[in-house]
Amino acid sequence: MRIAIAQLNLHIGDFEGNLAKMLSAVENAKSQHADLVCFTELAVCGYPPRDFLEFDDFIRKCEASIEKLAQAAQGIAIIVGAPTRNPILDGKDLYNSAYFLEDGKIKQVQHKALLPTYDIFDEYRYFEPATEFKVIEFKGKRIALTICEDIWNLGNENPLYTIVPMDKLMSQKPDLMINISASPFAYDHAEERLHVIRANVERYQLPMFCANQVGAYTEIIFDGGSLVLSPNGKVFDELPYFEDCIRVYDLDKVIAGNQEIAQPREKFRLIHDALVMGIRDYFRKSGLKTAILGLSGGIDSAVTAVLAARALGQDNVRVVLMPSQFSSDHSVNDARELAKNLGIQYDIVPIQEIYESYIEVLKPHFFGLPFNITEENLQARIRGMIAMAFSNKFGNILLNTSNKSEMAVGYGTLYGDMCGGLSVIGDVYKTEVYELAKYINKDSIVIPENSIIKPPSAELRPNQKDSDSLPEYDILDPILYQYIEKRQGPQELIAMGFDEALVRRVLRLVNINEFKRHQVAPVLRVSSKAFGVGRRMPIVGKYLS
Amino acid sequence: MRIAIAQLNLHIGDFEGNLAKMLSAVENAKSQHADLVCFTELAVCGYPPRDFLEFDDFIRKCEASIEKLAQAAQGIAIIVGAPTRNPILDGKDLYNSAYFLEDGKIKQVQHKALLPTYDIFDEYRYFEPATEFKVIEFKGKRIALTICEDIWNLGNENPLYTIVPMDKLMSQKPDLMINISASPFAYDHAEERLHVIRANVERYQLPMFCANQVGAYTEIIFDGGSLVLSPNGKVFDELPYFEDCIRVYDLDKVIAGNQEIAQPREKFRLIHDALVMGIRDYFRKSGLKTAILGLSGGIDSAVTAVLAARALGQDNVRVVLMPSQFSSDHSVNDARELAKNLGIQYDIVPIQEIYESYIEVLKPHFFGLPFNITEENLQARIRGMIAMAFSNKFGNILLNTSNKSEMAVGYGTLYGDMCGGLSVIGDVYKTEVYELAKYINKDSIVIPENSIIKPPSAELRPNQKDSDSLPEYDILDPILYQYIEKRQGPQELIAMGFDEALVRRVLRLVNINEFKRHQVAPVLRVSSKAFGVGRRMPIVGKYLS
Repeated sequence: MRIAIAQLNLHIGDFEGNLAKMLSAVENAKSQHADLVCFTELAVCGYPPRDFLEFDDFIRKCEASIEKLAQAAQGIAIIVGAPTRNPILDGKDLYNSAYFLEDGKIKQVQHKALLPTYDIFDEYRYFEPATEFKVIEFKGKRIALTICEDIWNLGNENPLYTIVPMDKLMSQKPDLMINISASPFAYDHAEERLHVIRANVERYQLPMFCANQVGAYTEIIFDGGSLVLSPNGKVFDELPYFEDCIRVYDLDKVIAGNQEIAQPREKFRLIHDALVMGIRDYFRKSGLKTAILGLSGGIDSAVTAVLAARALGQDNVRVVLMPSQFSSDHSVNDARELAKNLGIQYDIVPIQEIYESYIEVLKPHFFGLPFNITEENLQARIRGMIAMAFSNKFGNILLNTSNKSEMAVGYGTLYGDMCGGLSVIGDVYKTEVYELAKYINKDSIVIPENSIIKPPSAELRPNQKDSDSLPEYDILDPILYQYIEKRQGPQELIAMGFDEALVRRVLRLVNINEFKRHQVAPVLRVSSKAFGVGRRMPIVGKYLS
Repeated sequence: MRIAIAQLNLHIGDFEGNLAKMLSAVENAKSQHADLVCFTELAVCGYPPRDFLEFDDFIRKCEASIEKLAQAAQGIAIIVGAPTRNPILDGKDLYNSAYFLEDGKIKQVQHKALLPTYDIFDEYRYFEPATEFKVIEFKGKRIALTICEDIWNLGNENPLYTIVPMDKLMSQKPDLMINISASPFAYDHAEERLHVIRANVERYQLPMFCANQVGAYTEIIFDGGSLVLSPNGKVFDELPYFEDCIRVYDLDKVIAGNQEIAQPREKFRLIHDALVMGIRDYFRKSGLKTAILGLSGGIDSAVTAVLAARALGQDNVRVVLMPSQFSSDHSVNDARELAKNLGIQYDIVPIQEIYESYIEVLKPHFFGLPFNITEENLQARIRGMIAMAFSNKFGNILLNTSNKSEMAVGYGTLYGDMCGGLSVIGDVYKTEVYELAKYINKDSIVIPENSIIKPPSAELRPNQKDSDSLPEYDILDPILYQYIEKRQGPQELIAMGFDEALVRRVLRLVNINEFKRHQVAPVLRVSSKAFGVGRRMPIVGKYLS
């Protein structure tokens, strides 16, 4: 038997586009003599459809797509994910299902049992869990078909569920396992995914075909990397990351397991490629083409500009340099040099005149009160406004350039440098931004060395440095990582050896700045815990604050 | 037996404050000779604690509170909500539990079985559902103790669960039902809550004591209105809305059921009181005192100013009037008149000079392109910046004044009039804002009549009116209501008689403006479907857009 895996970059709610892509993949698989082609979880509508699932109209469109795919299942069988209505009044209205289509018909439907409801996932919001499991008989083989999380109650540290669907399927003596997934990217997740899939293969001694979604869906990035494992636990193949791909496998060869593939997984190459795809898909899927961003001469906007130019093309990115009386000469020079290196259009718009008109107009209301955060924020906000004026006038989308460290501790101005339609590096800590810059510069200097080596500064008052108000980033970032990614509290952090006063200060900063992060653009997610939909914190609370 | 219900305004994560409030309520109940006092769901930490629950430190603090409450359970028993660790490795790490404390000890713990995971609720994100149910024996009576949703699988249209906890408890022949809740406010929800509770009483023929949380928790408002029902289905008592309250009941009298209470529930009084509490609690629980907002002379900012003055006191609210060359005279006059009626401080800051400095500085980059949305947005954003400058200089929090209709269709400027730390009327449609204004003016004119009767306008270009770009609000709002609150799709809306082209245009506007709403402040929730945490839509999608 020949089995095709189709990992496709889909578009949430674009039924026509998704169907066309899948029908073309069916033809491709047929031309490669596949007997069966496997698409990914909820492929007909794209994952995650969120509350669109509450619309009857949306479900009808999913059903129409399944019908059309069933018609195309001639001379080839199709496995594809779609929601199914729950005919029982009690319980949730839908199931998250895998359809088995053959001979122009829906032959079998397997629902998902384990519904991820943590981090970015909300599946129990919509779906009733499966309670029945039945293997699929196809061409003399018995297929144990599962959906994503269904195989994740093995091999991970903290099993979230009390049942193991594959254990139930094993009583029906399957010959192979197929799993259709929408398993998102994080820089360490492909490793974990392989670990979990291998734990299944080792337990059940069966070959595994796992089709995973690819593409960016607003902030959630899916890396693909679909896996085929032989019963001996070897990786027979792994599909590429961040690319559409259709590959066909001979089941006998996979069972024989005389092949082992290892795709390289370097952290900063993965993050780089993920962010480039994240930007590209945000624009393409929104029907947008061009981006703008403010270039300060610092490392954050430099890295963002490079990623944008690589995602959208140099002709589709423009930058604006907005020096003030507090800007150093080298800032403008560094920014200009980067723009030239990238071959992108740049405008220089000094902000001093506008700044002074605010000061003048506000003077009678401010009673000679001294320069403080108000005037610093004014500068950041004038820059945000100018960038937005360019955005409005020329139809470019403003990219946000805040990094995860400053987002965490609130070192940014709301409606100022926190403006933008998409946060590109908001899930990348400052120390990681430097690593990303080095990765970008690995073959030739793209980002001026000066932007990398100079001490970080917001340049909102004379001789300001980030380290005036924040700990050094190589001290700050590990605390943030333990608190945000690892959910370690103050006691645990202090036990790890971090300074108690610093721990309390940093945790307090993170918690009291929840209100700022609430108003920020979607943050492209590259870690296991990004700000945004996957991290839900009370804004008004009194915990560690 | 005498049973006390304590509906308290708690503070998420404020363990000391919540404990002190509860200990004082225990003393109060004792002084009224209560045998038992019932607090609300997750009372020790406040509801909803969200991802704070993922911190071991947070759970330890909950456990410490339960210990201290147990010590206080001398001469009185206590029922109180708190998370409990799940000792089994498989499944979620926690239960959402009701503790029964007596004689200085934890006597019994009942976990919650039905975990709401829809709209604003994420309980299955954190909690394992209960599978065991056991009545509590206390002073010769058997108490069937449930938590909020556990009694909601009866009497509502769409039962979301497959089990009914009270059915299981009935086999143990209970004498009364106690339910501890955190059931949020919506203007029609007290009605629905009573309907569901009465369905339980009628089915089981038992008295019901239902303790519900009160207070605003960021955007989620809890109205209290705790209920006591007699087995004959009569409302023996309902605690007040929007207030802390402790009341003690004689069980025999409740069983006798010779009393029926009906608390009035007028939509706009409820919304008014909810928003006032929403503002007050946002400020108080954030340790803030004073607010600022821009006053345009229009109805939205007028209503917001009145609510703010009522919530915080006239001395704690100031307004800023920011006329431009496009502002009509009456706008400034209407705004000034309102400020005087409210006795609040106002500043007038004309924006023309700053506007011209932007135009001047941007001129070389804009190549004489005509006035368009860019220049309109500039005005809105200058106003946002001036208000934020006041906010920064004087420590007032900016209130957002956008209504639900304009939030829905994106008729607002990001980083302009969409600025602010809290959206006060973002869950109130424009037509409802008028009703709210009439309610405010019912006894005497607070909001100038002119603000109510003039046609709505953003005044960003000469003679602009909302109706230039939008349908009239009395046509728009019913479509929005059906789409947002009722999840009706295009087919259903057209079948209701709405114009097809208009339906498609409105739905498209709602969907393509998801990106704007993503960056807005928390919206005080007063309807069954507010923008924000309870409505989760893809930003990059291609559905009805």
